[in-house]
Amino acid sequence: MIKIAVDVMGGDYGPEITLAGAAIAQKYLPNIHFLFYGIDKVVEPILKKYPHLVAVSCFYPTEGYTRMDEKPSQALRNGRGKSSMWHAIESVKNGKADSCVSAGNTGALMAMSYFCLKMMAKAERPGIAGIWPTLRSESIVLDIGATIGASASQLVDLAVMGAGMFRALYHIEKPSVGLLNVGVEEVKGLDAIKKAGMMLRKVQLDSLEYKGFVEGNDIGKGIVDVVVTEGFSGNIALKVAEGTARQMAETLNIAMRSSIFSYIGYFLSRSAFRKLKHKMDPNRFNGGVLLGLNGVVIKSHGSANANGFASAIRVGYEMVSNGLLKEIATDLRLFHESKELFLGNEGEAVTNMEVV
Amino acid sequence: MIKIAVDVMGGDYGPEITLAGAAIAQKYLPNIHFLFYGIDKVVEPILKKYPHLVAVSCFYPTEGYTRMDEKPSQALRNGRGKSSMWHAIESVKNGKADSCVSAGNTGALMAMSYFCLKMMAKAERPGIAGIWPTLRSESIVLDIGATIGASASQLVDLAVMGAGMFRALYHIEKPSVGLLNVGVEEVKGLDAIKKAGMMLRKVQLDSLEYKGFVEGNDIGKGIVDVVVTEGFSGNIALKVAEGTARQMAETLNIAMRSSIFSYIGYFLSRSAFRKLKHKMDPNRFNGGVLLGLNGVVIKSHGSANANGFASAIRVGYEMVSNGLLKEIATDLRLFHESKELFLGNEGEAVTNMEVV
Repeated sequence: MIKIAVDVMGGDYGPEITLAGAAIAQKYLPNIHFLFYGIDKVVEPILKKYPHLVAVSCFYPTEGYTRMDEKPSQALRNGRGKSSMWHAIESVKNGKADSCVSAGNTGALMAMSYFCLKMMAKAERPGIAGIWPTLRSESIVLDIGATIGASASQLVDLAVMGAGMFRALYHIEKPSVGLLNVGVEEVKGLDAIKKAGMMLRKVQLDSLEYKGFVEGNDIGKGIVDVVVTEGFSGNIALKVAEGTARQMAETLNIAMRSSIFSYIGYFLSRSAFRKLKHKMDPNRFNGGVLLGLNGVVIKSHGSANANGFASAIRVGYEMVSNGLLKEIATDLRLFHESKELFLGNEGEAVTNMEVV
Repeated sequence: MIKIAVDVMGGDYGPEITLAGAAIAQKYLPNIHFLFYGIDKVVEPILKKYPHLVAVSCFYPTEGYTRMDEKPSQALRNGRGKSSMWHAIESVKNGKADSCVSAGNTGALMAMSYFCLKMMAKAERPGIAGIWPTLRSESIVLDIGATIGASASQLVDLAVMGAGMFRALYHIEKPSVGLLNVGVEEVKGLDAIKKAGMMLRKVQLDSLEYKGFVEGNDIGKGIVDVVVTEGFSGNIALKVAEGTARQMAETLNIAMRSSIFSYIGYFLSRSAFRKLKHKMDPNRFNGGVLLGLNGVVIKSHGSANANGFASAIRVGYEMVSNGLLKEIATDLRLFHESKELFLGNEGEAVTNMEVV
């Protein structure tokens, strides 16, 4: 049985969406069990609508919930031991749940998870990994916004963790990994990235295949399974991609309505547009994984719909059933051992940006 | 008369495209005069095909040209005093030309321009500014890859220079400016960005209107005229946008061919697709401006077509005819004076990333 804790209150729409999402996930994920955390007056009337869900879940009423606009420190102060988000995370710590899913405030989720679950041995910093639709299929991009800046060693940690996540989701033995940079030549870019590339070449890990540097336009091509970057540029990349996709869709939409011919054309080819929409639908790729912690925490987009929230639950489910944490722990240990062996002091971390 | 020096040899296609581009630009830019630099054996037979162009240009044969794969230091060593790129830049220094346009190797163009033209007073570092198509119209994004990392003061310099460029191109008195960040709240992101925001608020410049932080998905919406960021994230942003646009176009293309109905639909609505293509066509927005130097240097995309190269020439032409350099010099001086006045030591530069 795989036990998923859900912060029912999280997200822009709260229980209406999170419970509907759980109901969808339940249909295609065998042996799933839910632990729902939320305010009873709000949750219970909605939960009653899903008798199948009631049968495979326990509901734990909480005193409050973490609001979308709370700052991380505020959320921690107000929510610790009280909010639905906190309880969902704590259930992972206590072993009551195998993983936890929330569509709530990202900063709060990061802070609470970090505080409650603590970092995994050898991992210095957490990272958030997202699924990115590509022309080939899907890639994983990390860090998309957990922390800003990274040393060479921290970038390699991200590579190891991202590869572990890719393996857990797509069952590829040795995922290919690229470091995001401003050019593919070995001489370009930040020192930490160049050094990380050097480390990945020297310390040949069995768990991933290092392919060198990739550029921003390579992500959508899907030329590597895992794209590694620090959280500032990763967040910019993710949001620019979302913005550009929306911009093109809107521009096309306006153009299609500009003449009667193109409108008829649009009508005839709407199956193609549905395909495009489906291919690029952010709900299908919903579910960022907080990596580097002693527990699996999944961040759903705040504005995800029920299908989107179900995808996030699926990601949590796959991470657990494929033993993500154990794999990552082993891989990180192997990297840090061979790093010391091969590189000696050369492998020392060089922090190149500030941590905020 | 506005005199544009052209590195005829630059770009993926060389003289065939650069001269064809010049011929197009000549048609719609009054009083333009060209100084062409390139290898005579290659250039002359093509130039002959454009008698109108011959009438408004001088051709200066050069010993060599800068290759696309030369490293900046190599290019400088090999090309100094010899290559078509060098001579085109030098003509700006000597006052023979008002600005210079090249589709050649970006790193080489940066290095040669920096070496030959030197930095403008008060500007610490060069930046490359690019035109970004948005849902509203067009924005300017900088730095898209001249240097990596920036201090608070350098970010404000970029804001001032970007606003100057926007004014020169679009004749808006007080362009709106945003700082690219990972959140719009004042508490998030890199220290240098927060400090730059504080500076822009305190030192109220007449030349621009500071609007606060913007996120990656705001660029395509066109919510500000000028988006400021350091060169690493700027380059990632630009390339991710290009990659996503191509990915969507390809995905749609495949979907349109998947059934006979959608294919007929595509045929009927092809005017709409042409509109989309036109709106997003990178050739229309071709022409990055190297800012912060004592001279106007325009970088055309290496793979630009003739229309694209003509756009780059137009950008150079507009920068000169609207007195970009003089405006920027004044604005930079004003900023640095009021910075000292208002902020004292608080305004000191904080370098937050390495320069490579």
